[in-house]
Order: sequence, then structure tokens, then C-alpha cells
Amino acid sequence: MFEKFFPKEFNFFDFLDKEVEIVEQAAGLFKIIAAKGGVNEEDREKMRAIEHEGDKMAYSIIDHLNKTFITPFDREDILTLAKKMDDINDTINTIVSRMKVYKVTKADKYIIEFAGLIDDSVKALACAIKDLRNNKNANNILKNCMDIGKLESAGDKLRDTAIGELFENEKNAIEVIKWKELYQEGETVLDICKVVAHVVESILVKQA
Amino acid sequence: MFEKFFPKEFNFFDFLDKEVEIVEQAAGLFKIIAAKGGVNEEDREKMRAIEHEGDKMAYSIIDHLNKTFITPFDREDILTLAKKMDDINDTINTIVSRMKVYKVTKADKYIIEFAGLIDDSVKALACAIKDLRNNKNANNILKNCMDIGKLESAGDKLRDTAIGELFENEKNAIEVIKWKELYQEGETVLDICKVVAHVVESILVKQA
Amino acid sequence: MFEKFFPKEFNFFDFLDKEVEIVEQAAGLFKIIAAKGGVNEEDREKMRAIEHEGDKMAYSIIDHLNKTFITPFDREDILTLAKKMDDINDTINTIVSRMKVYKVTKADKYIIEFAGLIDDSVKALACAIKDLRNNKNANNILKNCMDIGKLESAGDKLRDTAIGELFENEKNAIEVIKWKELYQEGETVLDICKVVAHVVESILVKQA
Repeated sequence: MFEKFFPKEFNFFDFLDKEVEIVEQAAGLFKIIAAKGGVNEEDREKMRAIEHEGDKMAYSIIDHLNKTFITPFDREDILTLAKKMDDINDTINTIVSRMKVYKVTKADKYIIEFAGLIDDSVKALACAIKDLRNNKNANNILKNCMDIGKLESAGDKLRDTAIGELFENEKNAIEVIKWKELYQEGETVLDICKVVAHVVESILVKQA
Repeated sequence: MFEKFFPKEFNFFDFLDKEVEIVEQAAGLFKIIAAKGGVNEEDREKMRAIEHEGDKMAYSIIDHLNKTFITPFDREDILTLAKKMDDINDTINTIVSRMKVYKVTKADKYIIEFAGLIDDSVKALACAIKDLRNNKNANNILKNCMDIGKLESAGDKLRDTAIGELFENEKNAIEVIKWKELYQEGETVLDICKVVAHVVESILVKQA
Repeated sequence: MFEKFFPKEFNFFDFLDKEVEIVEQAAGLFKIIAAKGGVNEEDREKMRAIEHEGDKMAYSIIDHLNKTFITPFDREDILTLAKKMDDINDTINTIVSRMKVYKVTKADKYIIEFAGLIDDSVKALACAIKDLRNNKNANNILKNCMDIGKLESAGDKLRDTAIGELFENEKNAIEVIKWKELYQEGETVLDICKVVAHVVESILVKQA
């Protein structure tokens, strides 16, 4: 919001933008993988590389935060944004990793739905993060944060539906273990997006 | 503790009291549901409404915290109290939601025991939170926090007993998956109560 | 780093050292238990006692933190170190407790490997924590933190291998539930060690 005061040196806005772009890549790749239904070695490696890139970006932000006295908004909030966006990448990476370990080969309608919700949520998050540079964007930011909240509620219902059907129809307990975990992790991603949205909202409130 | 200095405007004590009262409602309803053994649509909706109310209260506290310069005790502690009490509601709501999704219809003695421990722990928590207004209550607060710690230990043992019996006697793995999760979440509620109690204790220490 | 300024009263370095020594005890006992394969009542009690001791130490640090104005480094970082080292003990204790509840009697090669990685990671952590007293040790600290990061990556791969083999070969779903949890908790310990290492690194950065 005070970008003009921090024109040189490390620009936290730029780096948060870069981190959220990596989160968008992770969500985008997950959508492709969900549609295919299986995870080949190439996709697995691509996702790992994205996760690794996100990790580096998060720690670069934290590192600069530790070296910098003046920050454009509360350092605690920057720290949480950097860490939680990293958690989104980690959790998407975990889902893909488990799909490979569990040898999932069929496209599952609920995983496809989760991937869609996650992609929408991450896109709204990217808009909100990028709009933080300018406090004229407050209304836009709030709208995107509200959308992220709605997508999280939709994820809650989706998880209940998916797990309900699983326990209703799947008689093979080992399959139940696998899919229950995948659905729960899908919902976890949407939860973390909501946590990030709340941090963004609180940044707005403090600036008001 | 310094309530007299904050007579007007937003009163954090009032709002923390209101939040813990919502937690008491959640724990009370869970006890009723546990005794019945099954979750009908009406109970499910009641619990969701309580959880939603708690959510709004927590964010109202956080929102005011972001707008307020002077707080009756460390803002970080208020933030943690608000969030963790919300986590208690969320976790109780999750248990009830899962009982419905898993079509639990029989009253389970361990779930009943967990609901009792949770209700006791939340009642002690409500006393501790309400006593924060006045530092003459320090001994009472400490006693309640200690009780919460004991209830958490009891919950640990209960979970081990319940899960031990489950793996000993239940041969249907799908049933094992369901009940293991319910018992673990029961214990999680007691864990979070203990975290809240530690925050309350640390507020006392700082005021001493 | 500024130990000379804090010669009397509560010495946070001493207490962090004592806490990490308790973590080393937990990791050491877990290695012995993993090699034996089963948990007898004596080991169970020993582990519980270690966990209890660690709990007391963590809360002693937090308690003093709340009473102290000047700390050798950021109070938030001391708090996180104390809590996260306690989480390591808790998680190791949980694994041992579950092995007993699940009546594990055979030594499992993956649990043995996890116990080895955890013991190595905790030893590196103990060196890093103890070296915090003197900023001449910065290079040593960074090397140990890097090792902890590598051990966490190794744990990630180990978990994928172990869980992959489990789902490939174990046809008894109840066994799958047990071992999947034990492997995941093993990896969780290494994750927490990495979180502690990151805190240590950030303390270095701030002092630089």
C-alpha cells in the first residue's frame, strides 16, 4: 500500500507476487493431473520442481524480512503470507505424490471438482495479493477474499459428499483409506487459501 | 485485568465471554448428540449454526484487534484465544459432521465419555476466561487451567483405551477407519482446550 | 550470542540446551525401541517420563519468557524453539504409544530407518542449539541446519517408499491403517526438526 516509499532494494510486493504465481502454477498443474486421473513421472517431477521453487521463494521472503527494518505492512503478516502460500504448494504436492504412490489411474469426479475449486481459489488469491500494492484496490481485494471464503464452504460440502459416497459404496477398505485422504487433503488446500485471505483482509483493516 | 481503563467502545472481555459461551453451546450440544448416538438433520443444522456464530465472533474480535491500539493484554494472546476457541468449535463441528456422514446410529460409550470430558473442560475454560476481568481471580483461574490439563491427560488415556479396543475387537476395517477418526478428533478438542488454558496462564504470568 | 550480557538469573541458553538434551533422549530411546520392534511397559513408561520432563522444561522456558523483559534473541523465536522441540517429543511419544496400542511386535525396517534419520536430525539440532551461545559458531550452525534439511528430504522419500510398499503388499486393511500412521508420524518428526532449524537460521540472520 505504501509501495512508493519502498522503491529500491528488496520489494516485498514483487516477491509475494512471484510466490503467488508459483502457487498458481501448482494449482494449474494439479487441474491437468486431476483431469488425466493418473500421475506420470514427468508430472510428478514438474510438481516437485514447482514446490521446490515455491519453497525457495518463501524462504527468500523470510530471509529478507529478517534483514529488513521497515516493511510495507506488519512483518508478522508478510511472514504468514509467505509461509501459508508455501503450505498450499506443499499440500498440492502431497496430493500428487500420494496419487502416484497409491497408483491412482482413473480420473475421479470429486478430485476433478476439488482441482477446479482450488484453481479458482488460487486465482482469486493471486488477484488479492497483487492488488495489495495499491489501497485503491480495497474493494476488489475484499471481493476476492469473500470468493475464497465461498470456495472453502463449497469444498467443505464437496468433501462431505465425496466421503459420504465413498463410505456408502466402496467396500474395499484399502481404497477407502486412499480416497478419504485425497479428498481431505483437497479440502485442506481450500482451508489454507481461506487463512491467507483472512491475513489479506486483516492487512486491509490495519491500513484503513 | 485492566477493565476499568477500557470502559467504552469495544470491550474485549465481553467479546471473549461471548465467544466462550458459544463454545459452551457447542460442547453442550455435542454431549446431547453423543448420548443419542445419531445425528439427525436438525442437530446437524444446530451445530452448524453454532459453529457459524463462533466464526463470526472470532473474526469480530480479530477485526477489532486490528483497529485498536490499546488492548487489555497482549494482542497476540487475544488473537490466539479468539482463534483457538474457534478451533474448538470447528473440531466439535467436524466430529458431528463425520458422525452424520458415517451414518453413526448407535451411542458409543467412548464418544459419550469424550463428550463428557469436553463439556467439563469447556466449562472450566469459560470460568477461566470470564475471571480474566479481575486479577483477584488469579487463583481460581489457575485452578481451572489445571483442571483443563488433567482433563486433557484423561482424554489421552481414553483415546488409547478406545483405539486399543477398536483394533482388538473390530474386524471390519471400514468401521475402524470411522471410529479411529472420531476418537482422535475427540482427543484433539481436549488438546486445543489445553492450548487455550496455557495462553490464559501466560496472560496471568505477564500481569503478575 | 550475547550470553555475556545475561550472566545471572534465568539463562535461556542453558534451558534451551536442557530441552534439546531431552529431545536427544527421546530420539535415542525411540531408536532402541525401533530396533527391538516392540514396546514393553517399561519402555512405554520411560518414554512418557521423558515426554513429561520435556513438557515441564518447555513451559519453564515460556514461563520465564513471560516474566523477562530482555532476551538474548527475539522472544518469538525462543517461544517457537521451546514449543517445537516439545512437539518433537510429543510426536515421538505418540509413535511409541501407538506401537504399544497397535501391539506391534516385529521390528520393521522402515521404522528402524525413520528412527535413525530422527536420531541424526536431533543430534544435528542439539549441536545447532548449543552453538547459538557464540556467534563464532555461525558456519557450524548453518551446516547442521542444512543437514537437518537433507534428513527431512530423505524422510519424505522414505515415507513414500514405505507407504508405497505397504499399499502394494499388505492386503489386510487394518494393518495398512496402523503402519501408514506410524510412517507418517515418523516423517512428521523430521518435518518439525526442519521447522526448528529454520528458526535457528532466522536467529542467525537477524544477528548478522
